[in-house]
Amino acid sequence: MVKAYAAKSETSGLAEHPIERRQLRDDDVAIEIDYCGVCHTDIHYVENDWGGTVYPVVPGHEIIGRVTEVGAKVTAYKPGDTVGVGCLVDSCRDCSACHDGLEQYCLNGMVPTYNGEDLHDGSVTYGGYSEGIVVSDRFVVKVPESLDPAKAAPLLCAGITTYSPLRHYGVKKGDKVGVIGMGGLGHMGVKFAKALGAEVTIFTRSESKVKEAKKQGADHVVISTDEQQMQDVAESFDFMLDTVPVKHDLNPYLNCLKYDGTHIIVGLLESVEPPLEAGALVLKRRVIAGSLIGGLPETQEMLDFCGEHGIHCDVEMLDIENINEAYERMKKGDVKYRFVIDMNSLKKK
Amino acid sequence: MVKAYAAKSETSGLAEHPIERRQLRDDDVAIEIDYCGVCHTDIHYVENDWGGTVYPVVPGHEIIGRVTEVGAKVTAYKPGDTVGVGCLVDSCRDCSACHDGLEQYCLNGMVPTYNGEDLHDGSVTYGGYSEGIVVSDRFVVKVPESLDPAKAAPLLCAGITTYSPLRHYGVKKGDKVGVIGMGGLGHMGVKFAKALGAEVTIFTRSESKVKEAKKQGADHVVISTDEQQMQDVAESFDFMLDTVPVKHDLNPYLNCLKYDGTHIIVGLLESVEPPLEAGALVLKRRVIAGSLIGGLPETQEMLDFCGEHGIHCDVEMLDIENINEAYERMKKGDVKYRFVIDMNSLKKK
Repeated sequence: MVKAYAAKSETSGLAEHPIERRQLRDDDVAIEIDYCGVCHTDIHYVENDWGGTVYPVVPGHEIIGRVTEVGAKVTAYKPGDTVGVGCLVDSCRDCSACHDGLEQYCLNGMVPTYNGEDLHDGSVTYGGYSEGIVVSDRFVVKVPESLDPAKAAPLLCAGITTYSPLRHYGVKKGDKVGVIGMGGLGHMGVKFAKALGAEVTIFTRSESKVKEAKKQGADHVVISTDEQQMQDVAESFDFMLDTVPVKHDLNPYLNCLKYDGTHIIVGLLESVEPPLEAGALVLKRRVIAGSLIGGLPETQEMLDFCGEHGIHCDVEMLDIENINEAYERMKKGDVKYRFVIDMNSLKKK
Repeated sequence: MVKAYAAKSETSGLAEHPIERRQLRDDDVAIEIDYCGVCHTDIHYVENDWGGTVYPVVPGHEIIGRVTEVGAKVTAYKPGDTVGVGCLVDSCRDCSACHDGLEQYCLNGMVPTYNGEDLHDGSVTYGGYSEGIVVSDRFVVKVPESLDPAKAAPLLCAGITTYSPLRHYGVKKGDKVGVIGMGGLGHMGVKFAKALGAEVTIFTRSESKVKEAKKQGADHVVISTDEQQMQDVAESFDFMLDTVPVKHDLNPYLNCLKYDGTHIIVGLLESVEPPLEAGALVLKRRVIAGSLIGGLPETQEMLDFCGEHGIHCDVEMLDIENINEAYERMKKGDVKYRFVIDMNSLKKK
């Protein structure tokens, strides 16, 4: 048994709750968790917003820790290594997606880090709000020494979610990239696009965020509610990285893309309303694409890229006992830009 | 002056009306028109469905004819050559799109073959329902000798509109391609996808069209209104070529795409309703793309491809005096698959 924080019902909030940790299989890595980022998805699962939450649920899929033990056949990791675990902990490993290192699109369904079902024994998976976790080596990544482990935790979700599409679509030096939304995902998108050599514009609805956007490294800021400003940047972007997780009008942003430009959705899972104008795609050969986190090889590449370029997430540290208040603040958008739980606060309890 | 068929108002229908043909400029090619395909767009302009029609309007942008005269600096064409003219007759020639041979996306606006404004003298452009046309050599294409000129006419619009995205997105041997819609565009999409080596499925709403779909060369037919059939092909296509020109639900088709699959819209210029489900894009890295006709180099490539592969449009020949009845039949979808006007019927009058 290990200590963890779990929600026992939709309305209970999170509280300490011991969980069973599985015995190591041959390919398993046992990790003592040092830091765990807090993703908005955690709240959705705790409160069963999407249905299907199995209680008790232990959230957390931005995990950084140290290896304590490895299974008999593990060669890539040894005790003491600083490692990470992201949004998924298993997949079929045998479909075309898995063969391509795109385990997040596994044709047989990937196993999420929490609230998933283990493929071997059918047990429920528990996430990173815990002292420790056991994960198959294929789903573990190495954390470069140059990275601050606390600030690296959110890279496993917010980082890879924005890095993956920018790389997949080949964002390069000189490209003009717009980033829509200034939350955990958006601020990482800015860092990656800048590091890839792009000229970056943040789109924000509020004049009050201009200063903060510039501080984040944006070359330009456009107030998306200002029609004149939007008109001034019509047909000028190669890519839009759209991190907004709630319903919003895509049409004004499509108009900002050049012909052949690509609007990348990483935050929205709902319906596109008001409706999309198909003419904006047809008349300029524009593209709307979706992207989901990233595969394991790409996640490792992303961490290495962050190590080389000194890229971290901007975080606010948190003790585990304050997690419920943190959720309330996140619901108001009151965090710059990601909460990270210091897991020593759980171990010390 | 040359003979032509023009509409003088939104409700007048088409009737004979002489038009001025410009004196040849140095880069111009004078063409005696033999055949002109009838596109649904012609009806929209004649009836001013999209606003902006300048009357009298002479429609027609699927033009095949023979060169009768060339300007002083024209070297690529000589009298007697069989040539084609498609949807555009000029562009700025100096922007990135024009430099890339994507004149249809000209940043300064391409000049449509009819109802456009000539960049030199501001005159209105007149289309192919006419004895002759004068077009700058850059916007003229050669018709391979192996092609039947009458059946080649619709390639200049229906052909290139479907060929261009299939090539742009790299459709290749073994790919699974779905074609939605069985009209002028759809039936050309089937021919091109087959010629590129793809396994082609036609999606149709009606059981009554299955036989015709198979006759068109489709390997499979799916009745899109049959939920079980749609479920059976879930996540199995690399590409969907969506030629439907009226509002329709994209979501059931998105579900038919594999991860990384691409839904290509070539027919729809309206809003996407019912609304698109963004989750279908994000969770499988799917793409929705638009595409508009094609550039001039690509149009030449398409004609050469048709020459090599013996690809023609299926046409129903028409004398010009029957054009108004033909429009009425097209509005009911009663044509397999494209009307082509034999321009001798105008010349003889």
